[in-house]
Amino acid sequence: MVETGHYGGNMGMTIAEKILAAHSGHAQVVPGQLIECATDWVLCHEITTPAALRMLEERGMDRVFNPDQIVAVPDHSVPAMNIKAAKMYQKLKSWVQEKGIRHFYDVGRGGIAHVVLENTGLMKPGQTLVSGDSHTCNAGALGAFATGVGSTDLAGAIYAGKVWFKVPETMLIRVTGQTQPGVTPKDIVLEVIRRIGADGANYMAMEWVGDYIDALDMEGRFTLTNMAIEAGGKTGIVAVDETTRAYLRARGVEPDQYTEYQSDPDAHYKVVVEVDAAQVEPTVAYPHIPSNGRVAGSDRIRVTHAYVGSCTNGRISDLRDVARILRGRKVADDVQMIVVPATQAIWKQAAQEGLLEIFVEAGASVSYPSCGACLGMHSGVLGPDDVCISSTNRNFVGRMGDPTAQIYLASPATVAASAVTGYITDPRAYNEGSSGHAAD
Amino acid sequence: MVETGHYGGNMGMTIAEKILAAHSGHAQVVPGQLIECATDWVLCHEITTPAALRMLEERGMDRVFNPDQIVAVPDHSVPAMNIKAAKMYQKLKSWVQEKGIRHFYDVGRGGIAHVVLENTGLMKPGQTLVSGDSHTCNAGALGAFATGVGSTDLAGAIYAGKVWFKVPETMLIRVTGQTQPGVTPKDIVLEVIRRIGADGANYMAMEWVGDYIDALDMEGRFTLTNMAIEAGGKTGIVAVDETTRAYLRARGVEPDQYTEYQSDPDAHYKVVVEVDAAQVEPTVAYPHIPSNGRVAGSDRIRVTHAYVGSCTNGRISDLRDVARILRGRKVADDVQMIVVPATQAIWKQAAQEGLLEIFVEAGASVSYPSCGACLGMHSGVLGPDDVCISSTNRNFVGRMGDPTAQIYLASPATVAASAVTGYITDPRAYNEGSSGHAAD
Repeated sequence: MVETGHYGGNMGMTIAEKILAAHSGHAQVVPGQLIECATDWVLCHEITTPAALRMLEERGMDRVFNPDQIVAVPDHSVPAMNIKAAKMYQKLKSWVQEKGIRHFYDVGRGGIAHVVLENTGLMKPGQTLVSGDSHTCNAGALGAFATGVGSTDLAGAIYAGKVWFKVPETMLIRVTGQTQPGVTPKDIVLEVIRRIGADGANYMAMEWVGDYIDALDMEGRFTLTNMAIEAGGKTGIVAVDETTRAYLRARGVEPDQYTEYQSDPDAHYKVVVEVDAAQVEPTVAYPHIPSNGRVAGSDRIRVTHAYVGSCTNGRISDLRDVARILRGRKVADDVQMIVVPATQAIWKQAAQEGLLEIFVEAGASVSYPSCGACLGMHSGVLGPDDVCISSTNRNFVGRMGDPTAQIYLASPATVAASAVTGYITDPRAYNEGSSGHAAD
Repeated sequence: MVETGHYGGNMGMTIAEKILAAHSGHAQVVPGQLIECATDWVLCHEITTPAALRMLEERGMDRVFNPDQIVAVPDHSVPAMNIKAAKMYQKLKSWVQEKGIRHFYDVGRGGIAHVVLENTGLMKPGQTLVSGDSHTCNAGALGAFATGVGSTDLAGAIYAGKVWFKVPETMLIRVTGQTQPGVTPKDIVLEVIRRIGADGANYMAMEWVGDYIDALDMEGRFTLTNMAIEAGGKTGIVAVDETTRAYLRARGVEPDQYTEYQSDPDAHYKVVVEVDAAQVEPTVAYPHIPSNGRVAGSDRIRVTHAYVGSCTNGRISDLRDVARILRGRKVADDVQMIVVPATQAIWKQAAQEGLLEIFVEAGASVSYPSCGACLGMHSGVLGPDDVCISSTNRNFVGRMGDPTAQIYLASPATVAASAVTGYITDPRAYNEGSSGHAAD
């Protein structure tokens, strides 16, 4: 089903507005309007969900609106990093068993929740998703409305299948042209955040359009929508096209199982950002904010750590980018490099393609899928004055460990190039065979 | 050089006594004698070494007797599990750099220290090794005297290249015949500890002989000597033979580079233990002591966790045993299985052989090399009432996490079989293709 018309109202709507209207029983919604929004999916991990469950239990409201609309994926602190983490995992798992939640991706069968979910075929275009995790916006690349909420709202969603939203304004980001080899979607989104600021899209839906987006594969689109929250965005969103449909078809989901929304020609955008992809260079967000972007290699910055992974950039195409650079090369002596495939399926795929051997041969550690070091929880926490080039999404003070550590955000290619030289390095020195994330 | 004669004394000596005599300037030593023993090697990791270094620094004794006789391998809490661990790693690394210690196996290039060391070709027959880690006895399989010491003795060894020892008595363990398929060296050592008790070899060298040992590959021998401390042993030891020589030759070490000691025919053994290998069954040490062995599958014990790894059983032959059972099978739904290759080299070998894919396909997590969950530090810490079948070496209360968790020690094969069924299972149900650890 393709839905492009007006909803009987008197002004055009954006995709985000259309999805929220359809989930709140309104023909038309306008930015700023408060709505009660039905949630098609609630994504639960072991850090924020136990807190929500305790709230419900304390109020005698220990129920689930629909166990088949809950997806549970432990990912932050598992395999358990300490006894407290083991207890939180146990809490999630016992709840899943008690409530009959079928969509449970246990340790060894899942990975990072957002990336697990995007691959399940459960989450479909036109749907809504909430989770107690800020990078829930990731799923917006499927033409959906996906956003992070606090544990209180999460509790409400689990109980009632509904949340209150203020309808967001929408920002349009039009990316035209094609990138230079070695420039990836991560560089595009870091450049956008550099231009608009870390609060540039506060409480807006960030809708990505343009021929660059049209040509972009789904993995690259997820990287863009994943980072919406780093500009303050409520969600990222990309309209459904043939790339989306093919991606879903490969996961057993046909177009008649979902609703495609397109923004109306007269939809209102609060902000329009124009990006010429050809002008974007490999971009590194300097400490301590994702908007602090500069061209990779502008300064000679020695790194002690190099990290590839996270819900932003732990996908197979990311790992291929890294392998292309590390193949036949070594991680610099003083650099500790960690590579974390985002899910068990990606891990297996990377093993089958021989990528993991390349990483280990180069001197990198390959971890089990986990959020781990991205948020300074385990498996690569930074110490005082460590300097990390990282494919993750957030470089706030203390995000990856000690508050004196310095975090530089970059694409997987830039991380790999920097790991080899020991200094933050423009990956265009290693351009042979770069894919540029073109959709098939 | 083969040394089998007496040292001019009037009674025979065991291998352990000969090595200690040669390292303390005595022609003859006797059990109970206090000696000052030269250390050929000091093995340092990031947990106990920083404490030793602080002692030296506080006394103005911050020096290293010989940087080329130190081997440094961070392994317990790396990649750093938290900020404190990151600082301990930094302390080890900065010391290594300051002292010019060349034998440093950094994160991504090393793994579990004992297994890294056994593969380097640095540690040779007839030598002495100390480390601030109880499983240092592992290296005794090379016909060496290797033992764990506290941080104070470690400090002395780092400073002076010497430690005080009381010469231990020697226990002779003669293993004759061959095991049934599915019975491994881990079962042999668990059976021995069951018979002699967890204090049965207190402060003794445990010397392994017999045609079972003659036919055993080096990996199996390391498993035996590694567990000496679990019977209270000062070290495990296996005399050099052609298997040892071939192992060392493959690592670039020729016989003229080391001294082979054999126990004298009239050497004194405090205890002799006779084991008929054919009678040994797959053995599981029940909580909470390694001597609490019973035949695998005697009781129907449901497990929540299955762990393969550690300095005892994280070698390539162990991983092959696990893969043989997991190939084409799945880990039981309610079981969390973790597989941890002991070193980066083993990790790469397992990747190249396709073993890691088999583990992940079966639903196991594959970790970077680390001591991790074996001692409840990270990457699989047990929660309350968890039940773990584990290829590790110690099942004391709280060893792997919460004090109410139950740890059952077993061979990798038994761990794999149990992971598949969800209950502690005799691996002889999966006997096809078992190697039995025969030396080539």
